[in-house]
Amino acid sequence: MKPTTCLSLLALGAALGSTAVYAAEPIEPIKPVQEVNLAQVELGKKLYFDPRLSKSGFISCNSCHNLMMGGTDNLQTSIGHNWQQGPINSPTVLNSSLNVAQFWDGRAADLKEQAAGPIANPGEMAFTHTLAINVLQSIPEYVNEFKLVFGSDEITIDDVTQAIAEFEKTLVTPNSPFDQWLLGDEDALTDQEKAGYALFKDSGCVACHNGQAVGGSSFQKMGLVEPYVTENGAEGLAGITGKDADRMMFKVPTLRNVELTYPYFHDGAAKTLTDAVDIMGRLQLGREFSEEENMQIVAFLKTLTGDQPSFVMPQLPPSTDTTPAPTPFE
Amino acid sequence: MKPTTCLSLLALGAALGSTAVYAAEPIEPIKPVQEVNLAQVELGKKLYFDPRLSKSGFISCNSCHNLMMGGTDNLQTSIGHNWQQGPINSPTVLNSSLNVAQFWDGRAADLKEQAAGPIANPGEMAFTHTLAINVLQSIPEYVNEFKLVFGSDEITIDDVTQAIAEFEKTLVTPNSPFDQWLLGDEDALTDQEKAGYALFKDSGCVACHNGQAVGGSSFQKMGLVEPYVTENGAEGLAGITGKDADRMMFKVPTLRNVELTYPYFHDGAAKTLTDAVDIMGRLQLGREFSEEENMQIVAFLKTLTGDQPSFVMPQLPPSTDTTPAPTPFE
Repeated sequence: MKPTTCLSLLALGAALGSTAVYAAEPIEPIKPVQEVNLAQVELGKKLYFDPRLSKSGFISCNSCHNLMMGGTDNLQTSIGHNWQQGPINSPTVLNSSLNVAQFWDGRAADLKEQAAGPIANPGEMAFTHTLAINVLQSIPEYVNEFKLVFGSDEITIDDVTQAIAEFEKTLVTPNSPFDQWLLGDEDALTDQEKAGYALFKDSGCVACHNGQAVGGSSFQKMGLVEPYVTENGAEGLAGITGKDADRMMFKVPTLRNVELTYPYFHDGAAKTLTDAVDIMGRLQLGREFSEEENMQIVAFLKTLTGDQPSFVMPQLPPSTDTTPAPTPFE
Repeated sequence: MKPTTCLSLLALGAALGSTAVYAAEPIEPIKPVQEVNLAQVELGKKLYFDPRLSKSGFISCNSCHNLMMGGTDNLQTSIGHNWQQGPINSPTVLNSSLNVAQFWDGRAADLKEQAAGPIANPGEMAFTHTLAINVLQSIPEYVNEFKLVFGSDEITIDDVTQAIAEFEKTLVTPNSPFDQWLLGDEDALTDQEKAGYALFKDSGCVACHNGQAVGGSSFQKMGLVEPYVTENGAEGLAGITGKDADRMMFKVPTLRNVELTYPYFHDGAAKTLTDAVDIMGRLQLGREFSEEENMQIVAFLKTLTGDQPSFVMPQLPPSTDTTPAPTPFE
């Protein structure tokens, strides 16, 4: 048998198996990366890790969306330029291409629009798009790579955010134990994990946490049955629309890799999955999970940890004599 | 011919070739990594990137010794906990195993001793060794890996710094164009680069910048012929010994990868290689290099950029419900 035939049969088997098992489930397996512009991805990977996109030369996209730590910083709220305390918990970049919109309040339509925000946010990277472009334009290796990828000698912020967004599209995490189970491997989950998933469905969590990303597809009110008490000032969608009805309407976060993306909620107030499940049950569903039920759901949630992005750490092209120096202390 | 025979002949050829060419030179090729404990290296790699060794959960070894940027932060002086301005330029971690001692003033005998410093320095990672160990000990994947590597259930700071140091031993950068030339490839350098090397030798730079690391092997006075004027308060060896004769005696920095490790000098005051060469010539050698000579030396220095460390970015084991949370804003 030829290898190609082998692969075809395997693919067929997987397709048949998967259809049979998960067609009826509200959660779908994450698809591996498909259809990206690889040249943009490789350029975007460098930019994602390059702190020269910040005023200080110290903060990169990866500072708050650390790909070694579930695509987050694992802080309640982030640290920005000059150690400013961020207003909200950094959402994971993992599987963020599956979100209906970006940021907790959905104010960016897509990853490309999102990527432009933090660079120029005075509380985050504290730079300007113009200054960031000036830095990149002074580095011949970047100039050449942008020219090869985008066809122009002039680097634009549009190209920068396009490349970063294309890299971020690759940050999906397929192959979690739960997805293996969805695809037909009955032994991929323990009985406790299966019980947790049954409870997750039966008690209504799946109403919001569904689809490939197990969330990310809608905006919902935080504190539906009981109001959510927090010192955090974020108002959700209302901050964008100005409508009172949109107060505390936040994008439902993905639960993929939730074991890695602590602490939880837009204010980062829930330190553990146990706390998060308890609070969600009471405030969103009006249900108090028993200790055993809570443990079952937490066990299920931990099966959503998939293959983490795996790549050789990029090397950043060096600055030149004409590159504007970072000014962290000015 | 068997592959092993092939390799033996190649090795023999390289050895013969290299002896013939570089035996008479004051600079030796960097040896590739040899004799490391690979289990310690893999553990140390995680620790090197783990910001949970800091009070804030935000600063790791890699923050100031960034392996994507020549093992430095490319800042004049570093950013520490709470955005404190560091007192001195971060030296590169690349090839640091070749240094006679660590830190600019040599106050740590070796990499292991060095690694303990920043974790507990209030101006850097601002943690304590005890608290760092408490964090690691709360993470089962770390506990297991330490047990496998060091044979004990109890993680110690000694084991932590040993693993980090062992990882750092792998951060050598062989195979630079200059080393290829040393090993017999005449075409590895241009005429300008060769002229720069001749000048580098003839004018006396090699008196201090020699050996595998092209530096790192001695302490010398900054400002030998003319005093060095700086606002930086670092006093070099005198800060350790208390001897007036040791004022401004600093460890000679390695020039390996110097193209990547800007800005230069212990105070980070020289922004470009051109500036650094000019100042070194005048202050250390009493010599004013012409513009052409300066360009030749700079061209030679850029041939010292070797193969950068290349590895898959590690994944850090997640914290657990009992892991003490970082406290960046307290």
